[in-house]
Amino acid sequence: MSPPARLRVVIIGGGFAGLAAARALRKHPVDVTLLDRTNHHLFQPLLYQVATAMLAPSDISVPIRWALRRVRNCRVLLGDVKRIDVERRVVLVDADQREIPYDRLIVAAGMCNAYFGHDEWEDHAPGLKSLDDALRIRRRFLLAFERAEAARSEEQRRRWLTFVVIGGGPTGVELAGMLPEVARAFRREYRAYDPTSLRVVLLEGGDRLLSAFDPALSAQARRDLEGLGVEVRTGTRVTALDQHGVSLADGTRIEAEEIFWAAGIAASPLTQGLVPLDKSGRVLVAPDCSVPGHPEVFVVGDLAAIRAPDGSWIPGVAPTANQTGAHAAAMIVADLHGGPRRPYRWFNKGDLATIGRHKAVARFGRVNVTGYAAWLLWLFVHVLYLAGFRNRLSVVLQWAYAYVTFQRGVRLITGSDTGEYPVPDTLRRV
Amino acid sequence: MSPPARLRVVIIGGGFAGLAAARALRKHPVDVTLLDRTNHHLFQPLLYQVATAMLAPSDISVPIRWALRRVRNCRVLLGDVKRIDVERRVVLVDADQREIPYDRLIVAAGMCNAYFGHDEWEDHAPGLKSLDDALRIRRRFLLAFERAEAARSEEQRRRWLTFVVIGGGPTGVELAGMLPEVARAFRREYRAYDPTSLRVVLLEGGDRLLSAFDPALSAQARRDLEGLGVEVRTGTRVTALDQHGVSLADGTRIEAEEIFWAAGIAASPLTQGLVPLDKSGRVLVAPDCSVPGHPEVFVVGDLAAIRAPDGSWIPGVAPTANQTGAHAAAMIVADLHGGPRRPYRWFNKGDLATIGRHKAVARFGRVNVTGYAAWLLWLFVHVLYLAGFRNRLSVVLQWAYAYVTFQRGVRLITGSDTGEYPVPDTLRRV
Repeated sequence: MSPPARLRVVIIGGGFAGLAAARALRKHPVDVTLLDRTNHHLFQPLLYQVATAMLAPSDISVPIRWALRRVRNCRVLLGDVKRIDVERRVVLVDADQREIPYDRLIVAAGMCNAYFGHDEWEDHAPGLKSLDDALRIRRRFLLAFERAEAARSEEQRRRWLTFVVIGGGPTGVELAGMLPEVARAFRREYRAYDPTSLRVVLLEGGDRLLSAFDPALSAQARRDLEGLGVEVRTGTRVTALDQHGVSLADGTRIEAEEIFWAAGIAASPLTQGLVPLDKSGRVLVAPDCSVPGHPEVFVVGDLAAIRAPDGSWIPGVAPTANQTGAHAAAMIVADLHGGPRRPYRWFNKGDLATIGRHKAVARFGRVNVTGYAAWLLWLFVHVLYLAGFRNRLSVVLQWAYAYVTFQRGVRLITGSDTGEYPVPDTLRRV
Repeated sequence: MSPPARLRVVIIGGGFAGLAAARALRKHPVDVTLLDRTNHHLFQPLLYQVATAMLAPSDISVPIRWALRRVRNCRVLLGDVKRIDVERRVVLVDADQREIPYDRLIVAAGMCNAYFGHDEWEDHAPGLKSLDDALRIRRRFLLAFERAEAARSEEQRRRWLTFVVIGGGPTGVELAGMLPEVARAFRREYRAYDPTSLRVVLLEGGDRLLSAFDPALSAQARRDLEGLGVEVRTGTRVTALDQHGVSLADGTRIEAEEIFWAAGIAASPLTQGLVPLDKSGRVLVAPDCSVPGHPEVFVVGDLAAIRAPDGSWIPGVAPTANQTGAHAAAMIVADLHGGPRRPYRWFNKGDLATIGRHKAVARFGRVNVTGYAAWLLWLFVHVLYLAGFRNRLSVVLQWAYAYVTFQRGVRLITGSDTGEYPVPDTLRRV
C-alpha cells in the first residue's frame, strides 16, 4: 500500500522570506521545492559593502542548498520561474517552460531595480539588488580611481572622481556614506589621487533622506553624511542621465562618469497574474498573506503589500520577510490539521541605517539612537542575524578584520560589464 | 637648476616577476611605471583552489598598487600593452595606443592559454590563467551539479557529473585531484547526488603525468589520483572537442558537459617583436636576461626561455619569476653605477604539486617526498610565500578555516560566460 500523497509546497525565492518558510516546514509531512535563479542566499542588508569593496561576496552569501541542508523534506532547484499558472496550479520554469505542480505556493521572489520608464538609464546607473549588481558597482567604483590615476587633465580626473548616488533611502544613504570612507584608504596607493578632489553627490527627489524614518533621524543622517563630505541634495529630480552625467529639474548638470541607482524598485514581474496589485506591482494580500480568491497561494516578503495598524505600509525589510515567510508556512501547517487561517501580525523591529563606517541612525520602539551608539547597535543586530547562516565567531572575526584593514584583497576588478545584464539565464546552456 | 633626468623604467606585468623587479628598484634613483591589464597581483599557484570553490578570489589576490604602496618611486597603471616598439623605446597601451617611453624595459607579461590551432575549443574547455578564468571554471563546475540535480534521466545526470581535465602537468593534476574532494562535501546538499556517479578523467598526451618531475613522483601522483577515484589516461591525444564531450585518437569518445583545459600555454603575444623566440613564443634571452641586441630590454618570468646547467629548460614557476625579476632590476642598478652585467644564476627550489586536499609530491634537491608529509611541506612553503603580501596569521587562519569547513560561502555562481571572453579591454569605456 502506498503512503497517502503528501502536500506539494513550492517556494519561489531563496531570500529571507523563502528560507524562513522552508525552515518552518521542516518536520511537517509536506514535500517542499524551493526555486531560485541564483544558487545563493544573500544577506542583502550588507550588499552595499560588497559594492564598495569592504566585504567579499563570500562574506555575505551562502549556497541556498547549504542553508537548507538539514531541511530534509526540501529540495532546492536552480531555475528561473517565468510564469505562475494559478488555474492549473503549476509554475513554469526556465526557457523550456518546465512545469512544476503545487498544492500550496509561496511567492517570495522579491523586488528588482526600476527606472520609471527610463530603462535606458540602467546601462549608465546600475542598481543594487543582486550580487552581480554589487560586483558591477564595485568594478565601476574601482575602475574610476584607475581612470583618474591615468587621466591626462585635471578636469578629466575630477570627472572620474565624481560619484552620483540617486535615491536617498537606506541603500542610497549607506552607499553614499561608504564611498568617501573607502576612498580615504586609497591615499597611499594612488600617487596622483588628491582626496580633496573626491566628490560624492546624493540626490533625493523627496524633501528629506530616509523618508520612512523619523524626521529627526533624517536630519541627523544628513548632518552625518555632510560631515563625511557628501553633498546631499533633496527635493531634486533627475530629468536626464547619460554616460557622462545627470541633469536635474532645476537646470543643473553634474558631470560624473559613475552614477549609481538606488531610487526605485518594483515587484518581480511574477506578480502579474496575481491580483489585486498596488502601483509598484506588489500584491495586496489577504490578512493571512494569501492572494484573495486563491487561499493556496501566498505572497510574502517584499512582494506583499501589507498595512500596519496605523494605516502605513509596513516596510520591505528583512524582519518582515522572515515573519511573513514563517506565517505562510504556519498557515500551510494549519491547513494540514484543518485549523483556521490566522491574520499575520507585524512585529516592528525598528529602523536602522548606517552612515559611513562608524555611525548609524536607528529607531527602536519610540527611541531614536544616533552616532556611534547606533552603529554598535547596527553591528550587534547584523552579526546576530548573519549568525543564522554562518558560524558566529568566524563572522565577527572576518568583519573585524575587514573593518580594521580595509581588506585589500577584496578590491578586485573582475569580469566585464557586457553580458552580465540583463541577468543571465542560469540554465542557458541546457 | 632642475635635477638630472632619472632613468625611466617600465615594467609590463604585475605577477611575481614584475613585483620582484619593482621592489628591487625601491630606493634607487629611477622612476618606475608598472603596467598590468588587471588591478590585482595573483598568487597563481593557488588559482586551482579558486576554480574548485575552495578559496575565495580575495584569498589569493591583492591590488598591485597595494602591494607596491611603499615603493614610492613606482606608479602603477591599469592598461593593456598592445605593442612594444623597441626602436623608438616606447610601449603602446590600450586601444588608443597611448605611448609610454622607457629607458629600460622589463617584460614580465607571462603566458596565456594555448589551444594549438584549435582556438574554437576555448569556448568548451576553459583554461586557468587568470582570476576570470578561475571564476568561469568555478561557475561551470557548480552549475554542472545544479544541472545534475535537475536532470530528468540517469544518463543526463551522468553526463553532467563527468568532468574531463586535459593536461597532466601540475595544473591539471591539482585541478583533477581537487574535484572529487570538493564533490564529497556536496553529498548532504544535493538530494539526487550519488557520489559513485561522479567521474573525473585526466587526459595526458605524454607517457606520464608531471613530465618535468622525477619519474617516481609521476608514478606516485598517478597512484594518489587513482586513490581519489580519478581516471588517469596517459599517452592519449584529443582529436576533437565540443560542447558535449571529447574524442580521443584511439577512437574513444567521452561524453562530458564540463571539460577543463590545462594542456597548453603560450607566451604573451607581446614577445612577437623580440627575437630570438622558441617555439612557444618565449624569448631566448641573453645570460643577463636581456634581449640579444637590446641590452635595455629584459624579459623575465615565464616569458624567458633559459637553460639550466644540465641543458634542460628551467621551469616557469614562481621562484624562477622572483629570481629573474630581481636579476633584471639588479642589472639596471648596475647600469646606473656603470657596473658590468652579470649572468642570471638559477637557484632550483624544487618541484611541488598537490593531489587532493591532503597529499602532494615534491622534490627538494635529490630527495623525493610524497603523501601527507609532502602536503605539509607544500602548505608551509605556500603560506610562507603568501605571507609576502598578506598578513601571515590571517592567511593561516583563513586557510585552516577553508580546509576544515569547505567554506561554503565561496560556492557562488556569479556572472555569465558571455562577454567575459575574450578578456575584456579594461579601459573599454574611456
